[in-house]
Amino acid sequence: MNPTHYVVALLTLGLTTTSFSQSIIQLPTRHRHPLTGNRRIRADDSLYCASWRFSVETNDAGAWSSIPARCQDYVKEYVSGDRYLSDSDVVAGESLAFIRTVNVSAEDAGFESDKWSEIFDSNTFNEWVDLAEAPALPASLRFYKELQELGVTIFLLTGRDEFQRNVTVKNLAYAGYSNWERLFLREPSDEGKLATLYKSEKRLQIEDEGYTIQGSSGDQWSDLQGFAVAKRSFKLPNPMYYIA
Amino acid sequence: MNPTHYVVALLTLGLTTTSFSQSIIQLPTRHRHPLTGNRRIRADDSLYCASWRFSVETNDAGAWSSIPARCQDYVKEYVSGDRYLSDSDVVAGESLAFIRTVNVSAEDAGFESDKWSEIFDSNTFNEWVDLAEAPALPASLRFYKELQELGVTIFLLTGRDEFQRNVTVKNLAYAGYSNWERLFLREPSDEGKLATLYKSEKRLQIEDEGYTIQGSSGDQWSDLQGFAVAKRSFKLPNPMYYIA
Repeated sequence: MNPTHYVVALLTLGLTTTSFSQSIIQLPTRHRHPLTGNRRIRADDSLYCASWRFSVETNDAGAWSSIPARCQDYVKEYVSGDRYLSDSDVVAGESLAFIRTVNVSAEDAGFESDKWSEIFDSNTFNEWVDLAEAPALPASLRFYKELQELGVTIFLLTGRDEFQRNVTVKNLAYAGYSNWERLFLREPSDEGKLATLYKSEKRLQIEDEGYTIQGSSGDQWSDLQGFAVAKRSFKLPNPMYYIA
Repeated sequence: MNPTHYVVALLTLGLTTTSFSQSIIQLPTRHRHPLTGNRRIRADDSLYCASWRFSVETNDAGAWSSIPARCQDYVKEYVSGDRYLSDSDVVAGESLAFIRTVNVSAEDAGFESDKWSEIFDSNTFNEWVDLAEAPALPASLRFYKELQELGVTIFLLTGRDEFQRNVTVKNLAYAGYSNWERLFLREPSDEGKLATLYKSEKRLQIEDEGYTIQGSSGDQWSDLQGFAVAKRSFKLPNPMYYIA
C-alpha cells in the first residue's frame, strides 16, 4: 500500500496579521469593569458579534477588511479563551476521522492515482507566535503528529514568499512541526496572485505529480476553494482577518 | 435596465425534518433545574456543542445524520432563542448589501447576460411551520420583501416533490410570501437525485434561460454547491439536520 499524503497549507503572514496583532493587543479600556478590571462585553454586542463570526466563518460575509469595532473585545475573548481551542479541536477531530476512513478503505476506494494526497492547515499556530503566545495551537499540532503516525506524507503550502523560507521553517520547528514532505512558498512568478489562484495552482502541481488530494484544511476560504480542490475541505476558525 | 432576478431556494421537507421536529420537542427532563424548571446545559456541553455547530455550519462535519445527544438541549436553545434570529438577520443583511451592490453597479458590471438572477433561501420558515411555531423567520421574510422592492425577480427552488406544490404554496402564503417568479419542485425525473445535483440542474436551467445567477442562499450546503453556482452564496444557519 502506498503511503497516504496529506498537504498542509500554512497561513499567509503579512501586514494583515501584524496589524491585527496590534489592534487586538490594544484592548479598549472603556468596557472594563471598574472593580474587577475584567472586560465586559455588552449583551447585544455579544449576540451580534457571534452572528458576525457565523457569517465570517461560513464565508457569507465575503471579503471583509477589519473586525467591527464593537466586536474587537468579543474576538479577543474568543481567540484567547476556550472557544477557539474547542473549535479547533473539533475540526481536527473531524479531519482525523476523515483521513482514517481513507486509510481503512484505501484499497477499495478505487482512486485512479496510486498516490494519495490531502491538504491540512496547521497555520493558526503562526498568529500565536506573532502574539508571543506560543506554543502552537494544540489541536493542529496533535493532528499533524497523528497524520504522521498514520503514514500520511505532509505538504505545507503558505502564502509567504520564498525569501521567508528560513524564518518560516524556524517558526515551524519552534512550534514543534517537523518532517513534512515539502514546503511551498510563493515564487517570484506567484507575486501578486490572489491566494485562491496561487494555492489552486500549487495543488494542481501536486496532482500533476500523481497525488490525489483527499483533504484540505485552512483558516481561510482561499486556502480551500478554486480548482484542484480536495475531496474534503476543513475550515479552521479565524475571525481575525480575511485573505482573498 | 432589466429587472434583477433573484432565485430563492426552499428547504427540502421530509422525514428528516419530521423526525427532528419530534426529537427536538421531546426535551430531556434530566437537565432541568429542580426549582425553576429551566433547562440547564452543562458548561462543557455548551462549549463542545458550539464547536460542533461551527463544524456543521462551515461544512467541516460533512454528512451527519443526527444531533449529538449531548447537544440536543443546546440546539433547542439555539433555534428557540435570540441567536438563531440574530444569525439569520446578519446573513440577510449581508445578502441585501450584496444585491444592492449589484443593483447600483449593474450597467457597469459588464455581465454578458442581459438578465440577472440570484439565489436566496427563505426556507427556514418551513420548519417553524412544521413545529407550529409560525410566523416565518422574520429576517428571511424581510429580505424577501426588500428584494422585491429592489425589483428583484425571485425564483423558489425546493427539494420537495411536485405533488407537494399546493401545500408548499399554502405554506408560503401563510408565512407571508407572495409574487415569486417561479417555484421549482422535483419532477418525476428528479426523483432520487442528491439535492446538490438536482438544484445545480435547476440553476443551470435558469442560466440557460439567459439569467446570470448573482447570489444564492440556503440553509444547506447542498443548496449552494455543485455547478451553475451563484456569484455569491449565503449559508443560512441550520444546526438541525443535514441534506446531502
